Amino acid sequence: MNIEGRNQVIEALKNDTTINKIYVDKNFMTRKDDIIALAKKSKIRIEFLPKKLLDGMSVTSHHQGYIAETVDFAYCEVEDILFSAQEKGHDAFVVLLDGIEDPHNLGAIIRTCECAGVDGIIIPKIRACQVNETVVRTSAGAISNMKIARVTNLKEAIDTLKDNGLWIYVSETGGEDIYSQNLTGPIGIVIGSEGNGVKQSLRSYCDGIITLPLKGSVNSLNASVANAIVVYEVLRQRDAKNK
Amino acid sequence: MNIEGRNQVIEALKNDTTINKIYVDKNFMTRKDDIIALAKKSKIRIEFLPKKLLDGMSVTSHHQGYIAETVDFAYCEVEDILFSAQEKGHDAFVVLLDGIEDPHNLGAIIRTCECAGVDGIIIPKIRACQVNETVVRTSAGAISNMKIARVTNLKEAIDTLKDNGLWIYVSETGGEDIYSQNLTGPIGIVIGSEGNGVKQSLRSYCDGIITLPLKGSVNSLNASVANAIVVYEVLRQRDAKNK
Repeated sequence: MNIEGRNQVIEALKNDTTINKIYVDKNFMTRKDDIIALAKKSKIRIEFLPKKLLDGMSVTSHHQGYIAETVDFAYCEVEDILFSAQEKGHDAFVVLLDGIEDPHNLGAIIRTCECAGVDGIIIPKIRACQVNETVVRTSAGAISNMKIARVTNLKEAIDTLKDNGLWIYVSETGGEDIYSQNLTGPIGIVIGSEGNGVKQSLRSYCDGIITLPLKGSVNSLNASVANAIVVYEVLRQRDAKNK
Repeated sequence: MNIEGRNQVIEALKNDTTINKIYVDKNFMTRKDDIIALAKKSKIRIEFLPKKLLDGMSVTSHHQGYIAETVDFAYCEVEDILFSAQEKGHDAFVVLLDGIEDPHNLGAIIRTCECAGVDGIIIPKIRACQVNETVVRTSAGAISNMKIARVTNLKEAIDTLKDNGLWIYVSETGGEDIYSQNLTGPIGIVIGSEGNGVKQSLRSYCDGIITLPLKGSVNSLNASVANAIVVYEVLRQRDAKNK
């Protein structure tokens, strides 16, 4: 998989992502450039290429003169996410995505979760967007700093989370007002897909349904927007509790 | 301007948007169709066309067989937004956008604001995305139900809002923790552009800067995501106060 774009490549370098080689626009050869400096420091090979060749290699068409060739995205296990929270010494905070299909939404969700201090994201192996170039780019570098577990069965993952003391809430319409719920403590939030929300079978498997107020005539928020409001509400309640 | 896509056209019909004509995929001619029924009820002309012709007319390439030809988007005045809040009998809630350039972000912001019960959005006439087909589509129909004022000078608009008792907050890094601020009461929120945030001259012109916590290594949220978290925090505080 390739990482494209200036900030994306810098984030990858800073986060010790395994990079085979970085392709750089040959017009940048003579200028002072922090990516080139960072790459040299980390002994990563640089190849200068004409912009046209980079355009041809680019999947996102937003390479900005930098394409890093990495080994494929390394998914982790659900247990790694829990262990990481334990190491940081705080209650686990996990987001589960039930069938997000749009790579822009997945990338946006990863970016927001990283900003909100979420420990990890769990996605299904099938019928859902996987980590690809567009996801990496939309995440604005956050992907390098986020644990993502890919599972065959979300219910089994939820069992593992429950066994480790997490409460699992589904973000959906028709549940309890999110602002009336205590969301402090170890928590998993299930976010549904763009079109269909969270599957009924999964909904009834969780500890509760939390619902964002809707005051207008449009009856749903975009999946990445709903995710953002919910994870920041968890963060708000946690920080208030710790004060 | 055209409105494209099934849900978008339905919302426009429901909200009495002025539609000249609706172009419908001629394969839909014989089936039961709520858009056709709604259009007939409202005495709006329907023209059935081959899918290929619709593809050619489409700007977003997501017409789903429906393109409504409307009169251009009708912007309102800042005063209309304030009057609308007054009519609804609640404190005004306004969002000002300082140079959002991406139509997907503008559409997403309109959609979220509509869901959160924002009374209106103010955008600059220059160096910013205007309402176009992509905005209409991304707003998922919310545009038909949202007042948008277009102004030459954001500062003048802020003066008008201040004169009417609104407190104007900028959403930016480096300010007060948003969760420590009282955001009830008449309010305007300034959201910055994707790359540059809110202009310095505008920042110092407002009543305060509110900042979302960032716990990760990525140092900013997407503009539409930041807008969503902030407007929903205002909504949360308002609803809590009114309980």
